[in-house]
Amino acid sequence: MARLDLNADLAEGFGTWSLTDDDALLEVVTSANVACGFHAGDPATMRRVCVAAVARGVAVGAQVSYRDLAGFGRRFVDADPDELTADLLYQVGALREFTRAAGGELAYLKPHGALYNAVVHHDAHAAAVVAAAQEAGLPVLGLPGSRFLVRAVEAGLTTYAEAFGDRGYTAEGTLVPRSEPGALLPDADAVVERARRLAVDGVIVAVDGTEIPVEAASLCLHGDSPGAVDSARRVAEALRDAGVTLAPFA
Amino acid sequence: MARLDLNADLAEGFGTWSLTDDDALLEVVTSANVACGFHAGDPATMRRVCVAAVARGVAVGAQVSYRDLAGFGRRFVDADPDELTADLLYQVGALREFTRAAGGELAYLKPHGALYNAVVHHDAHAAAVVAAAQEAGLPVLGLPGSRFLVRAVEAGLTTYAEAFGDRGYTAEGTLVPRSEPGALLPDADAVVERARRLAVDGVIVAVDGTEIPVEAASLCLHGDSPGAVDSARRVAEALRDAGVTLAPFA
Amino acid sequence: MARLDLNADLAEGFGTWSLTDDDALLEVVTSANVACGFHAGDPATMRRVCVAAVARGVAVGAQVSYRDLAGFGRRFVDADPDELTADLLYQVGALREFTRAAGGELAYLKPHGALYNAVVHHDAHAAAVVAAAQEAGLPVLGLPGSRFLVRAVEAGLTTYAEAFGDRGYTAEGTLVPRSEPGALLPDADAVVERARRLAVDGVIVAVDGTEIPVEAASLCLHGDSPGAVDSARRVAEALRDAGVTLAPFA
Amino acid sequence: MARLDLNADLAEGFGTWSLTDDDALLEVVTSANVACGFHAGDPATMRRVCVAAVARGVAVGAQVSYRDLAGFGRRFVDADPDELTADLLYQVGALREFTRAAGGELAYLKPHGALYNAVVHHDAHAAAVVAAAQEAGLPVLGLPGSRFLVRAVEAGLTTYAEAFGDRGYTAEGTLVPRSEPGALLPDADAVVERARRLAVDGVIVAVDGTEIPVEAASLCLHGDSPGAVDSARRVAEALRDAGVTLAPFA
Repeated sequence: MARLDLNADLAEGFGTWSLTDDDALLEVVTSANVACGFHAGDPATMRRVCVAAVARGVAVGAQVSYRDLAGFGRRFVDADPDELTADLLYQVGALREFTRAAGGELAYLKPHGALYNAVVHHDAHAAAVVAAAQEAGLPVLGLPGSRFLVRAVEAGLTTYAEAFGDRGYTAEGTLVPRSEPGALLPDADAVVERARRLAVDGVIVAVDGTEIPVEAASLCLHGDSPGAVDSARRVAEALRDAGVTLAPFA
Repeated sequence: MARLDLNADLAEGFGTWSLTDDDALLEVVTSANVACGFHAGDPATMRRVCVAAVARGVAVGAQVSYRDLAGFGRRFVDADPDELTADLLYQVGALREFTRAAGGELAYLKPHGALYNAVVHHDAHAAAVVAAAQEAGLPVLGLPGSRFLVRAVEAGLTTYAEAFGDRGYTAEGTLVPRSEPGALLPDADAVVERARRLAVDGVIVAVDGTEIPVEAASLCLHGDSPGAVDSARRVAEALRDAGVTLAPFA
Repeated sequence: MARLDLNADLAEGFGTWSLTDDDALLEVVTSANVACGFHAGDPATMRRVCVAAVARGVAVGAQVSYRDLAGFGRRFVDADPDELTADLLYQVGALREFTRAAGGELAYLKPHGALYNAVVHHDAHAAAVVAAAQEAGLPVLGLPGSRFLVRAVEAGLTTYAEAFGDRGYTAEGTLVPRSEPGALLPDADAVVERARRLAVDGVIVAVDGTEIPVEAASLCLHGDSPGAVDSARRVAEALRDAGVTLAPFA
Repeated sequence: MARLDLNADLAEGFGTWSLTDDDALLEVVTSANVACGFHAGDPATMRRVCVAAVARGVAVGAQVSYRDLAGFGRRFVDADPDELTADLLYQVGALREFTRAAGGELAYLKPHGALYNAVVHHDAHAAAVVAAAQEAGLPVLGLPGSRFLVRAVEAGLTTYAEAFGDRGYTAEGTLVPRSEPGALLPDADAVVERARRLAVDGVIVAVDGTEIPVEAASLCLHGDSPGAVDSARRVAEALRDAGVTLAPFA
């Protein structure tokens, strides 16, 4: 029977500022990538989200980042790998405390923003993230084929691959660059169809119509755009209607 | 047989800056109050200190602070109590991760600087610190008679009182204010004698000569002044010579 | 002929986060209290707002704060007065650079949030803010009767008093505490009427109907609540309809 | 008659932490690259250094950096160029305020650490720094042949090239990489001789003995290593003994 996890980024405010509608997203997703304070995520928000996530049975993952509050973690920082590992463990520990205090267990680690992009190719930073996950004893969630997941497998970690709900794929299975046509799916219907085909048939339809077999444990939805929550809600409903069980991968 | 714990603040640098000679202090103290990033303490330093402390059998405590890197946590911040609790749990969790990864267990929580001073009288912040310790399941170390320790006892926490190695005491058992004569002990010999009397006889000699019975689980030494390490070393040696067992309180 | 200045807080985002609709507010206010990075206000936003303000003839004031990004400057910080003065000069200088580069001149200094509230009574911090304004050669905008304005007058600074567009006043001319009925005006109509009476008759109508003579150079509008911009727009229109000239006080 | 400027980095502490002996260095150098808060440099220290520098006739330059306090500005940050320009103007303005308040004028801009290294080749960041200097109306100090100085000349800025007091040069006039022998001059005598030859003869002697003609307006000394102040003092004395006038380039 078909089964899928839906993940999204949560707790991405800081102090007086908020970005994501955490409560609404927690009613939809099955895994919450919770910001840990280095790109977003003040402690009070992290704590509140952990309590709500655990109460709803949503898995809590550490969405770790370069230290870059001003840039929202979207800027590559040429950090020393050992220092990067320490930075990530720091974030993981902070979130784990909130998760544990809420009666749950931290379920996985997923890099955010520029770090997510860097570890696709940047071997030293990929190794640094893997070292953090290993020391923390956490499974990881990431991009299939990335240096990050390759190294994680080599290190004996449990790895989960994710697909993207709203991004176009090439026939080779890579993402269509944002500068090219088809980089983003045209509308919410297309996202729903993407999710359904992935969950039911294990395929993603590329921009040229090719059906790519994809083994993804989770589908990444974006929560920080207008209409994001509505779109996510529709995806979840469509999947349930199609008989797909929505549940945390971890 | 006499027994005492010696505690000092460690990891109080940040990035390129350092303040305390952590390696030297770890050879002397039995409990390390490790800075957790809000007043000092970058992740790489925290991690390194935790590894070294666990390897030497030194207990690791979370030295938690108001969020005040620019003021080294020495400035009162009128934080909302709930937000303060979240800030402290964040710091505790980060440090616990490093301690656990090093093969140890986080042993206690001790407030730093302005927070330490505030919770002597500030009931709401005392309650916020106690709430954090309770949620984290940690014993606390603090000033005897402070609102903090009173509330901690009421909350059912394990509490440890500390005495100060280099501060003058009044006959009533309170600290001589820093603006008055006798606020600081005159030299290292006096600190050594203070430690010995406390460990062996359970008394502190006040500025007027009164012997005050004091039940302190730990003696606080300062690590951030010139000569601090030498002084601490002398204290430890004198205590061992006097047959005092130096061991973590927790 | 009647004349009034309308001021509001702008540039109160940080990085990816925004709070105020700066472009819309710049079409309404005549003085912009621009956040300077310590409670909000990233450099790119500050720069953009300065360019737009200067282009529209809106006066630019430095909205200076305690260093408290996580608390949005709403928390009292017990800063050393000399360090506080330096912190404020730092913020003033940063904003002055953007204003100057945009072809304008920095017009005034106004404390933000907890600092605004503190300097009503806290003499040492009031003196610290006055010292900063004096060193920077800036007029100040603040609460009539505050220690801040009293000290500013004593120091020979040009001072401007402000009234609040949406707060209730007691018959004695002080603000109705937020915990009491009448703390906030009931609706936008009341704010419009408040502004009109202030500009045309120089009075504010207290909660009990008393007409209080008020000499205020500026009326403070809030820009960070839903409907804030619409309300501000209505106030500006009503004032113009009543023949009031809207122009910067400075 | 021979003339040279000696520059060094100052104010590189933050809050409780210090790195450079600012008072001692101000007795030696003729140009102070003052940290502006993004990699180091709290406002109180910046202010104090500006007062002392202006009093001694030492030129004050803005040592601007990526926003990276945790990494001391030694890590490349892939910042958006427009945001980088704004970040640099922010720092420039803050320092200019302190300089002006001290009765002086800000004299130049010099990039710090990773930014200094980046703009040797990174065209977009070089352009961003030049844009900041242009908007601020400041001369720049940098590495001869760098993209930064090339672009600065193209933009019509006044540019000053610097040489390094303690780094080895290749026969081609580039720096010997730090990983290779000869990267650092062997001792203080060699630094003194380097300075003397540069000031008197306008040459630098490369590792292979080649005499390279160098037109450098300033010699960069390091202030953050043990013995740095003594070494700098010796250089200054030797230059004066050789009849070289030490004076700010700007």
